[in-house]
Amino acid sequence: LNRQRIEEIGEQGLLKRLQAFCPVDMVGDDAAVLTIHPEKRLVVTTDMLVDGVHFSDRTTRPEDAGWRAAAANLSDLAAMGATPLGITVALGLPGSLEVEWVERLYRGITDCLHPFNTIILGGDLVRSPKITISITALGEVHPEQLICRSAAQPNWAIVATGDHGASRAGLELLLHPEQGVDLKVSDRDFLIYAHQRPQPRFDVLPILDRAEKSTATGSGQTAASRAGMDSSDGLADAVLQICRASGVGARLQRSQIPMPPALANWLPHQCLQWALFGGEDFELVLCLPMDTAQKLVDQLGGSAAMIGITTVEPEVWLVDSSGRYPNEQLSLEQGFQHFS
Amino acid sequence: LNRQRIEEIGEQGLLKRLQAFCPVDMVGDDAAVLTIHPEKRLVVTTDMLVDGVHFSDRTTRPEDAGWRAAAANLSDLAAMGATPLGITVALGLPGSLEVEWVERLYRGITDCLHPFNTIILGGDLVRSPKITISITALGEVHPEQLICRSAAQPNWAIVATGDHGASRAGLELLLHPEQGVDLKVSDRDFLIYAHQRPQPRFDVLPILDRAEKSTATGSGQTAASRAGMDSSDGLADAVLQICRASGVGARLQRSQIPMPPALANWLPHQCLQWALFGGEDFELVLCLPMDTAQKLVDQLGGSAAMIGITTVEPEVWLVDSSGRYPNEQLSLEQGFQHFS
Repeated sequence: LNRQRIEEIGEQGLLKRLQAFCPVDMVGDDAAVLTIHPEKRLVVTTDMLVDGVHFSDRTTRPEDAGWRAAAANLSDLAAMGATPLGITVALGLPGSLEVEWVERLYRGITDCLHPFNTIILGGDLVRSPKITISITALGEVHPEQLICRSAAQPNWAIVATGDHGASRAGLELLLHPEQGVDLKVSDRDFLIYAHQRPQPRFDVLPILDRAEKSTATGSGQTAASRAGMDSSDGLADAVLQICRASGVGARLQRSQIPMPPALANWLPHQCLQWALFGGEDFELVLCLPMDTAQKLVDQLGGSAAMIGITTVEPEVWLVDSSGRYPNEQLSLEQGFQHFS
Repeated sequence: LNRQRIEEIGEQGLLKRLQAFCPVDMVGDDAAVLTIHPEKRLVVTTDMLVDGVHFSDRTTRPEDAGWRAAAANLSDLAAMGATPLGITVALGLPGSLEVEWVERLYRGITDCLHPFNTIILGGDLVRSPKITISITALGEVHPEQLICRSAAQPNWAIVATGDHGASRAGLELLLHPEQGVDLKVSDRDFLIYAHQRPQPRFDVLPILDRAEKSTATGSGQTAASRAGMDSSDGLADAVLQICRASGVGARLQRSQIPMPPALANWLPHQCLQWALFGGEDFELVLCLPMDTAQKLVDQLGGSAAMIGITTVEPEVWLVDSSGRYPNEQLSLEQGFQHFS
């Protein structure tokens, strides 16, 4: 008799077992894709957040919990190249919870949705001993603009659209305020804000389209070529997931990983670890032909960076061209295991 | 300062407060409607179920919990006149839960989806102290075939597509097995099965279309006219919700409420209460012009029935044409209050 428990096989193990019930590859992308029209794909993603596991009153005001829940789902749409149509919100709530808490949660959600002209379409309210937030986001995308994990080819550039590590640093400051006493107030606030108010990167999508079009004209290419996902589970995880899905490897340049100066100055020995494995920065990690990548990074500006290159060999390496640090191989096992 | 708690204002009170954050009427229909194409509407509905609140191992095997969760969401699509495109499943699970439990839950979900050619599109797996199931279902419908709560007109017939009260009776037998000792085994199994394996009534939709078309030709009508919802929260609740949304009232004929003989024979004094307020029968409650309703009921057969008529006066009455019972006014307050 099979008495194995979830904690024994972990999230990835459970996903593999449940894959048997799903005709499509659940683990394959940030969101599912449905053909609803020859020129349009519907993109659907869903997330559940549980009080005490994914957020807590200790570090997260209800408006921030709402913003972060909405941003995580919107980021999954952006990671697929899609623009948002709306979200549903199902809430499990203890009867003893103050009404104001729920109103503040909703305010955070709608504040996050507002700049993208998207709305709460509907939801469900039920009784639950633990506050539980389940959001499903719907978006649409033209089939040529879809971004999948599995489309990367060798010798493409790997682009990170912005800084990494700030969200993890902000969480640390919220959990252990005493650790930030030497920080400038503006640096401290910047890192905490990065954790509380992550921004889904829909702004990248039209810039990526333009970068592709301009290089296609110049080099005679016709079809758009792009792969990617968001860095919600960390920058290293994103690169590893894209490589595994695409059957390629990667060489990441240690010196090119974009990190906020506020973090690099504060914790110079810790920051790379958080940038690679911290998660929840919600940037996009894209694999693109070299000239498209260069145009995208130039046009994005800020801390967008080409962080490495995809390879035929399937391993993912973090390399240091200065020779100061040994090359390190990265693996999915180093990442976050939600049930461990 | 506002320190009001959710249990003080209840589910309806909380919904009203949160309505401020939603541009569309969240309380308005079983599902939200999005225009994705001139000829097509996307229909989205979401539900959350919590262990110990909505199901328990005492009465519900994991495969039945999965089936019921899927059926409830599919029923919301059917209630809008929509056909299903797929569902997402977000699960909150304790690490100590057996993997087999989750596989059995998924089997129940996919068994329910299978006859309707619909699939699990994706989902999320997270750690949670209580098993929590959040399903979002997507469907599509031609705008003329959409069924809304608010479209009923006075002097339309009210149709119930099948028996009511069986699910509540089945739950009673699961909670208190000793109460069913006088029941025939086949009656007992029938009632329990009605609770464990409710059927979303997609089969009604093409029959309704045909009934409308045949009466439109006969009487010179052009536009389809239909209103309705499902009876997930009870038959009385469905009639009351439709009436409130449409600004009409209703007279329901006590003798016409369809109830399974297995229940009527077992508990003749209890069965009407359960049929009206028990809930979870997942039949459709439709308001239709008289001739369409008659055709629909004839063609559906089984226990489908015309149970009453809509009225200009806004009250909803349960009347007894035999004069044996006094007329009773029904109200939403008699129904289920999830947070009370």
